[in-house]
Amino acid sequence: MILGRVVGTLVANRKDEGLLGQKLLLVRNVTLGGEDASGFVVAVDSVGAGEGEMVLYASGSSARQTHATHEKPCDAVVMAIVDSWEVGGEEMFRKTSADGEWAS
Amino acid sequence: MILGRVVGTLVANRKDEGLLGQKLLLVRNVTLGGEDASGFVVAVDSVGAGEGEMVLYASGSSARQTHATHEKPCDAVVMAIVDSWEVGGEEMFRKTSADGEWAS
Amino acid sequence: MILGRVVGTLVANRKDEGLLGQKLLLVRNVTLGGEDASGFVVAVDSVGAGEGEMVLYASGSSARQTHATHEKPCDAVVMAIVDSWEVGGEEMFRKTSADGEWAS
Amino acid sequence: MILGRVVGTLVANRKDEGLLGQKLLLVRNVTLGGEDASGFVVAVDSVGAGEGEMVLYASGSSARQTHATHEKPCDAVVMAIVDSWEVGGEEMFRKTSADGEWAS
Amino acid sequence: MILGRVVGTLVANRKDEGLLGQKLLLVRNVTLGGEDASGFVVAVDSVGAGEGEMVLYASGSSARQTHATHEKPCDAVVMAIVDSWEVGGEEMFRKTSADGEWAS
Repeated sequence: MILGRVVGTLVANRKDEGLLGQKLLLVRNVTLGGEDASGFVVAVDSVGAGEGEMVLYASGSSARQTHATHEKPCDAVVMAIVDSWEVGGEEMFRKTSADGEWAS
Repeated sequence: MILGRVVGTLVANRKDEGLLGQKLLLVRNVTLGGEDASGFVVAVDSVGAGEGEMVLYASGSSARQTHATHEKPCDAVVMAIVDSWEVGGEEMFRKTSADGEWAS
Repeated sequence: MILGRVVGTLVANRKDEGLLGQKLLLVRNVTLGGEDASGFVVAVDSVGAGEGEMVLYASGSSARQTHATHEKPCDAVVMAIVDSWEVGGEEMFRKTSADGEWAS
Repeated sequence: MILGRVVGTLVANRKDEGLLGQKLLLVRNVTLGGEDASGFVVAVDSVGAGEGEMVLYASGSSARQTHATHEKPCDAVVMAIVDSWEVGGEEMFRKTSADGEWAS
Repeated sequence: MILGRVVGTLVANRKDEGLLGQKLLLVRNVTLGGEDASGFVVAVDSVGAGEGEMVLYASGSSARQTHATHEKPCDAVVMAIVDSWEVGGEEMFRKTSADGEWAS
């Protein structure tokens, strides 16, 4: 899975019928240190992720292994919201109450 | 899914029989800001996308999960036409009536 | 699918039995303008493409969706010969009678 | 498969139910010489790998071919712990007793 | 498929049971001219390739379409040993008796 941050949302009214009602998230890749990296994807949300939250997304056929995406033309799905990670025993990220709020 | 813009069309008369009658689009990747990025694909159109329109395309086996591409040697399909997206609460793109017209 | 040009052929006598008798093409990626790009693959030919011809190839599991490649350890197949394409209403490539001849 | 080193772990309490109870590893790619390379993934652990260990991970649909990941939205799995490798007859890496201990 | 050269071997005693007894090769990508390129993979050997030999490897789900790799967590398999290839009518590589010998 790839580590990313939800940076926005996308609206597409005309789409494959299998994806009707699915929320589409813009997810930007991040580095091991939690900084913005190059690259982003548009992913279906299967866990109720909010803007600003660190998430994991799965790609390819694995992105179809959720209730939201089964047998749909979807190749990226957010399947986890990240609470924390550590590298070499050092905590690199921990979710705070301020994360995951939708910008308003 | 990857965010792209339809920049043209491609004609291939000699092709796998499963793809006869399918429209082939040239889709160029775009940045989060909606600018041209490097990279493009040739994708089957499953939603009636027009030149100039912002679209999403799915790759790999997920590209075969539409009526147009089921069990076909197709690894990229345009499966949504984008209306708008926002990043950090700021609208980065909104479709206008001028988009999606075929160049003539 | 990726746009490429057939630049050569490859011979491999010792190979998975499923690929016996299949022609293996060297396909170099091209730009939207039809110029050589970086990157190339070795693809099974399913449409009788000749050296010099512009083609499309499909990758991954989609490469196994032809008669030539069904259930074979093949991850790239040439599944179309390109006649022409246009970008922004301008023709970027049109096949001529000189294309597609095997170098001799 | 890709050669990597386990550099940390990740906690995600809210995730697809199929991944409950699975350990998530941060795996950084390494060069043929065993040095850190760019790129990393988050992978499910199917072999009990410890931080610091050199491992192999499989991606895509192949990542679902273990007991831990069958039919789960998982696109990367650590499926081997590396003992040694050689390039051109020269040993580039050999596991020592100091490897694979979890940082504490 | 990707063109590569077998540059070494890798030993992993602790691995998914489906891969027990399989030989793991280090395969470095090569250019159209046969020179070392960036990038390498660890692939299961399905054709008895030796160190130094030019080979083709298949990736993704296609890597599971051999007897050695069926339903295994394997995403790369060497499925052909290359005898020769030509580009633009010029021979770029031909296997000699000195190739394919294991370094000793």
